[in-house]
Amino acid sequence: MERVDHLADERNKAEFNVDDMKIVWAGSRHAFDVSNRMSRLVANDPVFEKSKRAVMSRKELFKNTLRKSVHAWKLINELRLSDEEGLKLRSFMDQPGFLDLHWGMFVPAIKGQGTEEQQQKWLSLATKMQIIGCYAQTELGHGSNVQGLETTATFDPKTDQFIIHSPTQTSSKWWPGGLGKVSTHAVIYARLITNGKDHGVHGFIVQLRSLDDHSPLPGITVGDIGMKFGNGAYNSMDNGFLMFDHFRIPRDQMLMRLSKVTREGKYVASDVPRQLVYGTMVYVRQSIVSNASTALARAVCIATRYSAVRRQFGSHDGGIETQVIDYKTQQNRLFPLLASAYAFRFVGEWLKWLYTDVTKRLEASDFATLPEAHACTAGLKSMTTSATSDGIEECRKLCGGHGYLWCSGLPELFAVYVPACTYEGDNVVLQLQVARFLMKTVSQLGSGKAPSGTTAYMGRAKHLLQCSSGVRNARDWLNPGMVLEAFEARALRMAVTCANNLSKFENQEQGFSELLADLVEAATAHCQLIVVSKFIAKVEGDIEGKGVKKQLKNLCYIYALYLLHKHLGDFLSTNSVTPEQASLANQQLRSLYSQVRPNAVALVDAFDYTDQYLGSVLGRYDGNVYPKLFEEALKDPLNDSVVPDGYREYIRPLIKQRFRSAKL
Amino acid sequence: MERVDHLADERNKAEFNVDDMKIVWAGSRHAFDVSNRMSRLVANDPVFEKSKRAVMSRKELFKNTLRKSVHAWKLINELRLSDEEGLKLRSFMDQPGFLDLHWGMFVPAIKGQGTEEQQQKWLSLATKMQIIGCYAQTELGHGSNVQGLETTATFDPKTDQFIIHSPTQTSSKWWPGGLGKVSTHAVIYARLITNGKDHGVHGFIVQLRSLDDHSPLPGITVGDIGMKFGNGAYNSMDNGFLMFDHFRIPRDQMLMRLSKVTREGKYVASDVPRQLVYGTMVYVRQSIVSNASTALARAVCIATRYSAVRRQFGSHDGGIETQVIDYKTQQNRLFPLLASAYAFRFVGEWLKWLYTDVTKRLEASDFATLPEAHACTAGLKSMTTSATSDGIEECRKLCGGHGYLWCSGLPELFAVYVPACTYEGDNVVLQLQVARFLMKTVSQLGSGKAPSGTTAYMGRAKHLLQCSSGVRNARDWLNPGMVLEAFEARALRMAVTCANNLSKFENQEQGFSELLADLVEAATAHCQLIVVSKFIAKVEGDIEGKGVKKQLKNLCYIYALYLLHKHLGDFLSTNSVTPEQASLANQQLRSLYSQVRPNAVALVDAFDYTDQYLGSVLGRYDGNVYPKLFEEALKDPLNDSVVPDGYREYIRPLIKQRFRSAKL
Repeated sequence: MERVDHLADERNKAEFNVDDMKIVWAGSRHAFDVSNRMSRLVANDPVFEKSKRAVMSRKELFKNTLRKSVHAWKLINELRLSDEEGLKLRSFMDQPGFLDLHWGMFVPAIKGQGTEEQQQKWLSLATKMQIIGCYAQTELGHGSNVQGLETTATFDPKTDQFIIHSPTQTSSKWWPGGLGKVSTHAVIYARLITNGKDHGVHGFIVQLRSLDDHSPLPGITVGDIGMKFGNGAYNSMDNGFLMFDHFRIPRDQMLMRLSKVTREGKYVASDVPRQLVYGTMVYVRQSIVSNASTALARAVCIATRYSAVRRQFGSHDGGIETQVIDYKTQQNRLFPLLASAYAFRFVGEWLKWLYTDVTKRLEASDFATLPEAHACTAGLKSMTTSATSDGIEECRKLCGGHGYLWCSGLPELFAVYVPACTYEGDNVVLQLQVARFLMKTVSQLGSGKAPSGTTAYMGRAKHLLQCSSGVRNARDWLNPGMVLEAFEARALRMAVTCANNLSKFENQEQGFSELLADLVEAATAHCQLIVVSKFIAKVEGDIEGKGVKKQLKNLCYIYALYLLHKHLGDFLSTNSVTPEQASLANQQLRSLYSQVRPNAVALVDAFDYTDQYLGSVLGRYDGNVYPKLFEEALKDPLNDSVVPDGYREYIRPLIKQRFRSAKL
Repeated sequence: MERVDHLADERNKAEFNVDDMKIVWAGSRHAFDVSNRMSRLVANDPVFEKSKRAVMSRKELFKNTLRKSVHAWKLINELRLSDEEGLKLRSFMDQPGFLDLHWGMFVPAIKGQGTEEQQQKWLSLATKMQIIGCYAQTELGHGSNVQGLETTATFDPKTDQFIIHSPTQTSSKWWPGGLGKVSTHAVIYARLITNGKDHGVHGFIVQLRSLDDHSPLPGITVGDIGMKFGNGAYNSMDNGFLMFDHFRIPRDQMLMRLSKVTREGKYVASDVPRQLVYGTMVYVRQSIVSNASTALARAVCIATRYSAVRRQFGSHDGGIETQVIDYKTQQNRLFPLLASAYAFRFVGEWLKWLYTDVTKRLEASDFATLPEAHACTAGLKSMTTSATSDGIEECRKLCGGHGYLWCSGLPELFAVYVPACTYEGDNVVLQLQVARFLMKTVSQLGSGKAPSGTTAYMGRAKHLLQCSSGVRNARDWLNPGMVLEAFEARALRMAVTCANNLSKFENQEQGFSELLADLVEAATAHCQLIVVSKFIAKVEGDIEGKGVKKQLKNLCYIYALYLLHKHLGDFLSTNSVTPEQASLANQQLRSLYSQVRPNAVALVDAFDYTDQYLGSVLGRYDGNVYPKLFEEALKDPLNDSVVPDGYREYIRPLIKQRFRSAKL
């Protein structure tokens, strides 16, 4: 079979070694190797085929997920895949299902909050998947505010049991993935009550369904919460509801690492530091940041390749039209997203390091860096997931009308991605946490306590509050020091302005609530500085491979200068740059776009995505888009017959003006 | 049956008469009456039920659309509804289908481009729906660039026929709604060729299918292009592809109002001015602007009501939590969208007037105002549809996790709305048209030709280029003159800067292409000025009803000051305002939010949407959200059985560790 590469010309233009860039993108040769092997394993296995998802009924889609999940687990066992390989294989399976929650939430919750004995008992079952678990925290009426949960776990000393109960309709657990139809067990969160006293929200292991016939146990009402955004997407998953009617569990199913209830019903806090819980949060959020880069890269890969294939206008003599990727308007929207994908990749890499560092410190009971690490991961989770959601939709629009076709892969990618803005902390709520941390840091300036980590720049407040940017020509905007200083000045000045405005209020909380919108903007500025500074640190370090470093530098400055333009109001109103300097930045940006242009297709090839994973006719590696669009169209059930079902009942009576014969 | 209004408290807070506001929103008492009656007619008719769309298969959904469409047409006939009433009824049907294209594109194309005789012949069939038509312009490889279409219509003098042919795969018609399975006829666009000469793209009436058995005529290949974004949404519609293999039509099926081909094959332009075609474009685009306000209002209505129902945080003593609508972060995102919905409503109203005005002038062969009207409608189409798409998704996020449920109504609304950014002119391409017009206007300043209409402000260039804003305190931002001047200065200065930068290029076209991104921003600034100025004109005029004017003034200034904050970089870099003035604007904005807060629910009630049309559990009029979410969930097919289909084949073998018995 002959395979023509319609994008060969584009690939020949590249000024760097794509294979070297693949290693940089993956993080290491080993990571590349694992990712490359697992993605091909999935792509070549017919069970993982996914092109029919859009026309499957809910039940078919759900059953298809069960099949893929069990098959994946079988492969993981048969091929004796490592944890790292198994995780990659599941991610390339690319269909939300119960495995995600079992491995991503249920098992870690027991590891983090269970005692040694509890871990021994439950993890041996869970890691063999003899039980399937989910994580049931959110309730119908309670999302972000965990402390507002209503489910109760009341200790009954007579029987040495907890009575789990849902006192109201709004206290139903609602949303947990894998809960609706699959899970046999759950870690649930409920208010612990002993001797009439409410000790706040705690975790419990609860069996939901019989291991013999899968029927829900007496006292448990459970089901699926219904269709969600998109076609395919999370409809493959049984997000569920759960109500308890005085359901009893043994006392030892409370997760007791941090605090316990004795046989007598006494509540006792253990000496294990509570901060350990935040360590887990740092872990989960760093993986969300890493997934953001993966998802955004996917959309950018599709939009970049199709922008090179697609031609519109530009021919005044009937000749070939211009590739849309050559238009500045297209570059101006697309290349910053390409740069963002790389930016999020590298900040995600750094977050992995941060997590390791925090973990080491926690083990040595050093909690000093935790608040900063916590704020930083919360902020980066918020910022990268918001930018990725918007970016995916922008990539869809960049593909013109065809981006609206399901087979472009973009509608599904969007629908499956957007919940990341809400789960694991609503993005606005998270930015407010960052803002609180910043306000605290500002208030301690000059107190002798030097800010550290990502807030270290605030220690140079004196300089940053009075400096003015030294940019004199467009080239200066490629100077890392000048770029960083502009972002630092902007972030610090916004934070200080907020702090000053807050201080005008007698009641701090009321001030905080009045200034919420400004505080979110200050937090965003701080987070953008982190991403820019980590990207600059990356490109200033050692990078191997022919031409690779040059490309990454271009992307780094595109990212920074695009942010500068997008948030120009911040930079100007804080006097961090002048209008003339901003105009020079735009000039530099245009020049960088021209430098990226010949490398664009190769830069998305470096993501090493298979066509099967991309799932996009527009983003095909070989650029053979149009014949394949036809092939896809012909598969639609509506094309099963030439004359459609409904002709006799509706169309014919209409055009023959015989309404009485219509089936209305 | 007792009906409790959970939002009664909110409604009692309102400081204006909602019924009066309903009239203002609708445009007139008559328009309100029609809209009110038609929406209730649809809501109370079980055929129009739409809650099951998400779980219908493609074929079921398509057939359901046929049924609804034919039923709607039957009602229109039986009840002898006026054109206005019929249009409203179809819009409340709220399911894309062939009626939209037949009435919205096929019939107007014949009216606009057909000769008297052609109109007589074809409209008499079309208006009785004895034929069903669609509008086939876009091709697989050709969207925005109409002049690049490849389909040919070659005149054959021997037979007095045109031979319609698709010479390549990319020349297939692709996207036309109603084409895939339903239409019997189409207006198609093809390159007219006579005597070997290409006369460019012209319109032709083509029969596609037999009126006896609906089979495609020989030489015609036609089908559906497959699934699109979302669940439900445009999947109800048979967007189609179409290829011609030397298909012949009689000469008199070329639409010959503007130019014709004689029996001898001579191409003759008629004396009917070509500008008339632009009149139609003005009409279509003004209706898109009007639809933008309708769609955005729908999302805002859902988000506002649910923000009043939903409570999170804020209780430190175990009492009731705070309504999320009371948070400034929520107000800061929601109220500008509420204001935008009203803003787009009024600019749409004004566009209707503009269309009438242009039509009158065209009839009197006065083409002077057409370029300005054309640029203005193109720009407003672009700006309002982009803002509405983004706004719907923002409203979804404002509903927290539950916004992601299909039954929130928001995913479907988003999926069905976003194509508006692409069809009838890609939004970026349209802004470039506006930019070209602005550059021309700027270049003619001082030439004695005074700019008119929406560009009249450019006539005051001398003042606007050197003035500085007189705003001294927050209250000044409620001064219409000061607000307008800031927007005018910003728009003009951006346009002039672009023109200056353009003039530095030797080759104008190359300069234009290099500065595309800046030009789009200048065009956007001009369009935002139009919307702000029409909103101000509205609230400065006579408005009846208790408290109505005050509310609209609040919304008007929220809209303007929100834009000022969002595009602060523009305002500051052009020195149209100072950072201190911008800070006063934010202060005023916060105060306006507080004033809108008690009126928010009543302001969305004024849209007069029925619960059936809204199609949202979260946006229910009575606020009874949570019990209804449960009801909806229970309807999902996955809840048909307690133990799901797939248990025996997959879940049981997994937990029993017997993979060999799994059906993989």
